[in-house]
Amino acid sequence: MTLKGIPGAPGIGIGTAQVLKKELDIPRFALEDSKEELDRFYRALDQSKQQVSQLLERASKNGNKDVADIMQAHLMMLDDPEFLAKVKESIENEKLNAEFAVWSVGQEYIQFFEQMTDEYLKARAADLKDITERIIRNLTGTLLDLSQLPQNTVLVARDLAPSDTAQIDREHVVGLVTDEGGPTSHVAIMARSFQIPAVVGTKNATGEIKNGDLLVVDGNEGIVEVNPAEDSLKNYEQKQLQWKKEQSDLGELITVPSVTKDGAQVKLEANIGRPEEVEIALKFGAEGVGLFRTEFLFMDRNTLPSEEEQFEAYKKALEGMRGQVVTIRTLDIGGDKDLPYLGLQRENNPFLGWRAIRYCLDRRDVLKTQLRAILRASAYGKAAVMFPMISSVEEVVKAKEVLEEAKAELREEGQPFDEHVKVGIMVEIPSAAVAADLLAPEVDFFSIGTNDLTQYTLAVDRDNEKVREYYNPLHPAVLRLIKRVIDVGNAFGKEVAMCGELAGDDKATEILLGLGLQVFSMTPSSIPRVKKVVLSTNNEEAQAIAKKAAALA
Amino acid sequence: MTLKGIPGAPGIGIGTAQVLKKELDIPRFALEDSKEELDRFYRALDQSKQQVSQLLERASKNGNKDVADIMQAHLMMLDDPEFLAKVKESIENEKLNAEFAVWSVGQEYIQFFEQMTDEYLKARAADLKDITERIIRNLTGTLLDLSQLPQNTVLVARDLAPSDTAQIDREHVVGLVTDEGGPTSHVAIMARSFQIPAVVGTKNATGEIKNGDLLVVDGNEGIVEVNPAEDSLKNYEQKQLQWKKEQSDLGELITVPSVTKDGAQVKLEANIGRPEEVEIALKFGAEGVGLFRTEFLFMDRNTLPSEEEQFEAYKKALEGMRGQVVTIRTLDIGGDKDLPYLGLQRENNPFLGWRAIRYCLDRRDVLKTQLRAILRASAYGKAAVMFPMISSVEEVVKAKEVLEEAKAELREEGQPFDEHVKVGIMVEIPSAAVAADLLAPEVDFFSIGTNDLTQYTLAVDRDNEKVREYYNPLHPAVLRLIKRVIDVGNAFGKEVAMCGELAGDDKATEILLGLGLQVFSMTPSSIPRVKKVVLSTNNEEAQAIAKKAAALA
Repeated sequence: MTLKGIPGAPGIGIGTAQVLKKELDIPRFALEDSKEELDRFYRALDQSKQQVSQLLERASKNGNKDVADIMQAHLMMLDDPEFLAKVKESIENEKLNAEFAVWSVGQEYIQFFEQMTDEYLKARAADLKDITERIIRNLTGTLLDLSQLPQNTVLVARDLAPSDTAQIDREHVVGLVTDEGGPTSHVAIMARSFQIPAVVGTKNATGEIKNGDLLVVDGNEGIVEVNPAEDSLKNYEQKQLQWKKEQSDLGELITVPSVTKDGAQVKLEANIGRPEEVEIALKFGAEGVGLFRTEFLFMDRNTLPSEEEQFEAYKKALEGMRGQVVTIRTLDIGGDKDLPYLGLQRENNPFLGWRAIRYCLDRRDVLKTQLRAILRASAYGKAAVMFPMISSVEEVVKAKEVLEEAKAELREEGQPFDEHVKVGIMVEIPSAAVAADLLAPEVDFFSIGTNDLTQYTLAVDRDNEKVREYYNPLHPAVLRLIKRVIDVGNAFGKEVAMCGELAGDDKATEILLGLGLQVFSMTPSSIPRVKKVVLSTNNEEAQAIAKKAAALA
Repeated sequence: MTLKGIPGAPGIGIGTAQVLKKELDIPRFALEDSKEELDRFYRALDQSKQQVSQLLERASKNGNKDVADIMQAHLMMLDDPEFLAKVKESIENEKLNAEFAVWSVGQEYIQFFEQMTDEYLKARAADLKDITERIIRNLTGTLLDLSQLPQNTVLVARDLAPSDTAQIDREHVVGLVTDEGGPTSHVAIMARSFQIPAVVGTKNATGEIKNGDLLVVDGNEGIVEVNPAEDSLKNYEQKQLQWKKEQSDLGELITVPSVTKDGAQVKLEANIGRPEEVEIALKFGAEGVGLFRTEFLFMDRNTLPSEEEQFEAYKKALEGMRGQVVTIRTLDIGGDKDLPYLGLQRENNPFLGWRAIRYCLDRRDVLKTQLRAILRASAYGKAAVMFPMISSVEEVVKAKEVLEEAKAELREEGQPFDEHVKVGIMVEIPSAAVAADLLAPEVDFFSIGTNDLTQYTLAVDRDNEKVREYYNPLHPAVLRLIKRVIDVGNAFGKEVAMCGELAGDDKATEILLGLGLQVFSMTPSSIPRVKKVVLSTNNEEAQAIAKKAAALA
């Protein structure tokens, strides 16, 4: 069987299907031997404890105290003698199978806690639900813990949340297949960053594929082969070898300087989402971080991250980049994320709503804490601050006011920071491109965010399948706006970078060089491919091509 | 008590509050005299019959057969002897008050019909719900029928749907007050079109105001006075007189040609939403209809409007305008409207979604029917076709293909139409403005939609209160895009009109004249005020002002 989807991340992955079903199945069957069943239960219990211990360890290492506390509580519950005794009794005396025994004993406890009026005790019901689910999933082999998958796994899911993807063990997962998503969905971006071949938007892979199926994930073509015939499989193994060879050839480019045929210097930087990714960035020869997304600090939690926590993360990235620039974007979040602790509410058009700098200017406390953390980290490397979602000069002026307040406080406190930290903005709203000349005097650099710029310029939500065909970052109007920003940057002597997906698309590299772009920031693994195009490009020819693409007279 | 809101429509209205509560209250109380209660019931029944008869009459007159059929069915139910006998018995024997009696008998019937498997009979449950609700609301005096309000009513509501507002009796309603909405919300647009003073966005007027309160609605300042003191009331009566005088002075401008001080001709056209509004357009001296919205044909119904139905509506507008242009915009609807019969689904970002021309190009049958109706109507006046939500040349080419198909069919059928009907596009997506030179060869005219153009250019949902401050149609970037469209239009010899709210804002008139705009289309009642500015403007001075506003060197 062949499933068609959308190429999510390039490469060919061959492995065994693991289908993620978010619904919990609780089988119930008659026991033949309760002794054996008891053994099954204890094995699943041990697995669960190990998993929670590992999650605890990781959370502690990452300084994520909230998660660590919860995992600690889970460990205690997994050792609770009364709970264990009750399950044992159900299996032995009532002859219940382990899944059903765990579930019914769990339900008793959950209902007990849910009736509590004390909020703290009430919250224990959720923990109990979590651990009974974990034990049951370990019993049925439908575990959701993505960091604990066997080697050569191809993950098949309806969709993967950023927090799911972040958990994935990159050594063991050789492919990703999702029902939903497009080429610029989060799962595709993450897969490219992790270099895991991925096919997205298959519509019904989770329905068609069963656990244990042998899968070929062709992320170049957007095809998934399910239990392929032997010669087809051989064919793909050949292709895989070839692809790996190409990749390793590209790998040789990593240490080569990126200069066009006619000698123009081009700077290739990395987009990262967590401080650990600076390693990957350097591995691929990034000459800096053009975009460090800071949303990870605010996701999957119930309280704001402290200044200290943020400082540590920024410092880690700056130290890791060894003196090369790390461009830290302030919080870019809005009503499409469900984060009640930030006071974000579902909006009718979240992409046109209260998000990013608009949120931060209403919540100056959040912005100032983040800016203090960035400034303090700036003592440990070459930091730059970047404000997202700027539509007018007013927002830049206000954001810089908060930055100055933060600087004044740190001076007062005697904390060291880089007095000359560069300040720039994302150009991702059409007005910022059209009025770039008004913004230029206020900033040190521009960074063009092509994903949003394309969305707004063409009025297309790129995540909406019904209108995806209208999403075209190479539309003449988008290219003209990009050119305008570059021209204004040159006129004002301000650096212009690009950190949208387009910067990492080697099919667009020549056009972008032709428009005059000199700084490209992208998912690290794309750097060699883009560099290859840079090395073979003649700037004059590129200009002619760009002119034609933008339909400029 | 003074309530603060946002000016929705100018003018001062003084009248008695009628608060619309959408929730149905069913009082239950002990009867003293069942005879009197029976009288109350029969009075409410008569009122209900009269109302339904009037709705039936109106629907028949407007050729709305669906609604007429339903009203006919309601009339029959209101005469059903079994239903009436049961209610009578409940009041007389069970001593139930009329509201509760109607409700409980109604419930019996509703449940009976809801159990039916026959779809037609099942649908009767909804009709019964409707008529029992009508009788109860007539009993409690909380009727929602907006066409049946006493004189000097000020309507107070959480929000008003376009279909609600359309029902309003313009003779009897002297003011509108809503909790929600902004200056460009539908209710504000409708109020301006109907010339009813309105204050919107008061947050909690429906909570603060009671039925029967005396209200002053100051739509100029966005203030509502509740039961004002005598001298305050007198003061407002003075202001109202003064305002009416100003309006009548403006009225004298209606027949004056709109020419600037230095002799430049300016065309002032009307935006309308229904064919009947051409009368209002002409009353205010409109020199054509720059925007005829056709959504009314598709709202509040369960099936597509037929070609015939559409033809009649377009013909009526064209005949009414007596040879002046009527620019008919094709269907502009999307996932923010709940119209299941069109297959529209709730989207995450409906403003960036499957709407307007995107919908029509996927549903060519819907588009072709509409274009056939417009073409046929073009035999009766001077029609122009306008496509909304154009982002690229491709969409125009495709839409024109459908137009040509429709023409070919009509030629084949021997139906008369204007072979030279003009074809234009809305410029409301930034890409259309930026790439106007690529679009110009494909069209006869541009019409700038400033509401959407501003939304997309600044990435702001104007209906979202949290970001309203970022919505600024006079942002330099928006003004520059407007100027670009006008300049391209001049270079290509194509007419450029503007039909967004900005065209009717007399504070913007001078700037727009300075940008070179010559055709303004607006809510009819704004025409005299805009004309007043036109008459006093010197084009050269206006150019200097516009240059400064757009921050152009």
